[in-house]
Amino acid sequence: MMFDLLYKNISRHIHLSEEEFQQFSVPFTLKEYKKKEIALKEGEHCLFEGFVLEGCFKVYFLNEDGLEQTLYFAVKEWWITDLDSLINNVPSTLNIEALEDSNVLMISRKDKENLYETMPQTEKLFRIMNQKSSAALQRRILSLMSKTADKRYLDFLEKYPTLEQRITQQQVAAYLGISHEFLSKIRKKTALKK
Amino acid sequence: MMFDLLYKNISRHIHLSEEEFQQFSVPFTLKEYKKKEIALKEGEHCLFEGFVLEGCFKVYFLNEDGLEQTLYFAVKEWWITDLDSLINNVPSTLNIEALEDSNVLMISRKDKENLYETMPQTEKLFRIMNQKSSAALQRRILSLMSKTADKRYLDFLEKYPTLEQRITQQQVAAYLGISHEFLSKIRKKTALKK
Repeated sequence: MMFDLLYKNISRHIHLSEEEFQQFSVPFTLKEYKKKEIALKEGEHCLFEGFVLEGCFKVYFLNEDGLEQTLYFAVKEWWITDLDSLINNVPSTLNIEALEDSNVLMISRKDKENLYETMPQTEKLFRIMNQKSSAALQRRILSLMSKTADKRYLDFLEKYPTLEQRITQQQVAAYLGISHEFLSKIRKKTALKK
Repeated sequence: MMFDLLYKNISRHIHLSEEEFQQFSVPFTLKEYKKKEIALKEGEHCLFEGFVLEGCFKVYFLNEDGLEQTLYFAVKEWWITDLDSLINNVPSTLNIEALEDSNVLMISRKDKENLYETMPQTEKLFRIMNQKSSAALQRRILSLMSKTADKRYLDFLEKYPTLEQRITQQQVAAYLGISHEFLSKIRKKTALKK
């Protein structure tokens, strides 16, 4: 069932009866993305949140030199959005692109706001999810600013155990904030240690 | 009144009656910090959240070279905590230090959890506050990773309009992620343009 994964995901945070989950899931619609398809482009207003059922997205921005810097990869059970754009109603600074054919359950900003009204339990759900997202972003900053590229590479392998085989080395490098060449050196060093 | 600022702050997000705010404020206690006093040290478990009434804190971590990198400054009406440590129950990676004599309204993790039970309206309050915090951290990452130091300096002046006169140039440099010398060059350049 299409909604099983969503049910499993939110059940980590709140308990909903079958009937309540039915009501919760109504505003979500399935959207399919082909590989390389763009879900959000910098400058657009982000009006959705998406729960990834299958596939993989890169959520990235362009730095001053026009180089891609990946904020995170969204694989199965991750959420995609530009939260800053979504809640502050400003143009998005992020780009979201499918790296594989992907399926996503999408909810619009308006429908999500409605959920808070009609199902107050969702306040708790998204309070916890936002909390986790803040903590994860804090970790990401510390990782980017305080760790060596070697350690960031090990963090990446731990956080996304199956991803390295699915994406290009260029894409891994854009997540680590280093050049492709430097990543090759790190990978050789790491392989030697194994 | 000690709680006026807190009332004003939360009233941006939810409406509480006088009686409800009274109930909300019970678990908060006033704590005074002297300049250079430590509110949280890396490695400790963070068990509080604090609302700054007066003064200023730096929230920072040490990078691989042992150099301070400031995540943010908390001035009046900002909150201080290590959210990752607080919610995931892991040792803190952040340090929080008073840069001036400061007054903070502190609430313990346990009391905050109790608030969710006894005052369900606080789910909405902290859902919104966590959302804002996530969006702010996302901006901070983009600023650190994609903007030149010149632009980060201008962002700093905009975000903290009164702070530059209150803290050392060293502390500003630790927020921008650059050396003290480099900051001096940027300030000269910026002054010339004015």
